[in-house]
Amino acid sequence: MTDKPPETRRPWDKSGRKPYGAHGGKPWTKHRPQRPAAPPEPIDDDTVRLFGAHAVEAALANDARVIKKLALTENGERRLAELIAKRGITVERVLPKELDRILGADTVHQGMMLETGHLPEPELAELAERAVTGGPLILFDQITDPHNGGAILRSAAAFGAAGIVMTRRHSPPLNGTLAKSASGALELVPIALVQNLARAMDELKGMGVKLIGLDGSAADTLEDEVFTGTIGLVLGAEGKGLRQLTAENCDRLVRIATSDTLASLNVSNAAAISLHWIATARARAR
Amino acid sequence: MTDKPPETRRPWDKSGRKPYGAHGGKPWTKHRPQRPAAPPEPIDDDTVRLFGAHAVEAALANDARVIKKLALTENGERRLAELIAKRGITVERVLPKELDRILGADTVHQGMMLETGHLPEPELAELAERAVTGGPLILFDQITDPHNGGAILRSAAAFGAAGIVMTRRHSPPLNGTLAKSASGALELVPIALVQNLARAMDELKGMGVKLIGLDGSAADTLEDEVFTGTIGLVLGAEGKGLRQLTAENCDRLVRIATSDTLASLNVSNAAAISLHWIATARARAR
Repeated sequence: MTDKPPETRRPWDKSGRKPYGAHGGKPWTKHRPQRPAAPPEPIDDDTVRLFGAHAVEAALANDARVIKKLALTENGERRLAELIAKRGITVERVLPKELDRILGADTVHQGMMLETGHLPEPELAELAERAVTGGPLILFDQITDPHNGGAILRSAAAFGAAGIVMTRRHSPPLNGTLAKSASGALELVPIALVQNLARAMDELKGMGVKLIGLDGSAADTLEDEVFTGTIGLVLGAEGKGLRQLTAENCDRLVRIATSDTLASLNVSNAAAISLHWIATARARAR
Repeated sequence: MTDKPPETRRPWDKSGRKPYGAHGGKPWTKHRPQRPAAPPEPIDDDTVRLFGAHAVEAALANDARVIKKLALTENGERRLAELIAKRGITVERVLPKELDRILGADTVHQGMMLETGHLPEPELAELAERAVTGGPLILFDQITDPHNGGAILRSAAAFGAAGIVMTRRHSPPLNGTLAKSASGALELVPIALVQNLARAMDELKGMGVKLIGLDGSAADTLEDEVFTGTIGLVLGAEGKGLRQLTAENCDRLVRIATSDTLASLNVSNAAAISLHWIATARARAR
């Protein structure tokens, strides 16, 4: 017991419980579970922190990513050896617990952390141009959940979506959690960040993009819709759906035909269904 | 500062940091973030703990649920007033922090916790019977993630799936997290728990169920498949996919047609796409 610091050495207390107030909280909140002791370490605004095997691997394979710091455990380094050699990256070898400390408890980092720069932001016009020949554009109307955002990115990559438009505020941060859910797709799907969604919708319509909003209360169904021309698929947040102004700005509103039992779908599942449906319909029309 | 206990009052330390070792950890792990102080309170094996508005509301509306304890905050009780009156339930009024303590930190309980019994388990034959006229059966091959499991349940309800078959071990626990992700669908989709998946697959085939496995490396695609007869859709775990024996036991293996960029889909998204596709194909065939 000699390695314990004096202020917590209380030989008369054999209970092993933490001393009263040891969490630093006020005594009347002592029963409330405390947040993990160490929050993630802050970084500057120009740096994006990624973790997890697929996310870090994809970012290292993306030449558009400026690599600022790559911290890996022994296992992490083994897995990425080829990419590290190819890009000639200096690796900072760390212990798993150091990544736990930097990234916060409960983060599944798989022994890999990358600090990198933001990706270049495409203009709306570039995305609209991509959507002419490729899959649909996707517009987020205040989807902020990073798990859902990441899963939608993953489906967007799988079905060749032209890109994603989201507002600079009220959108999920394009870093760790979203990147991990996207499983590498953050590097593949261009994302335009706009100030105001209604204005961006107007601009896209001006460029010939037909905006189709997913809305559970719409009269028409996705399954009966004809997907010709350049398409933008507009998705609202889980629970709230499309805001009224957003719905009004859509050219069409459709719902996914579901059985009566439970009509509501998780937003990333609704996005996956729509992207798959549109990709299949278009492949068949060719 | 008089409300601070003597052992943490260190007037010479103005840093506001916790005293060295105050987390109760060993000094050499002092940088490691600690787990939240209070883990969830244990319950007996016959009890299922549910939380979150949709999950609790749906369980209370399900007559098959034996209600053991309903703990609600003031807000929670207001929201459920109608159901409580209808079923004549005694409510235990609690403060939000008491639910935090019982359910563990970081649990989004929305002021509602229900302790209830397990749902009756249907026989395989009952599910196969339901699948004759209804949507497909879904078989889990070691899907253990409760978020994915819950999201699949939600899509299963939305597209009228006949039920789910999973193994008693290597499956997500049918309680809190899964129920919350399922957003009420746990009460709607019957789930059969089997000892051995390969044996259950044999039995189902004997009952005339055609087993179609989702497999990213399959030669044939979901989009070209014909969905006649009674169908069981077999889903493997994220990352690992179907086990070899499971794949061998399927009548057919199909993949979802994706663009070349990134072929992998989140398993709940793959399930949603498949269920939607099958439901639409069958509705059109009628």
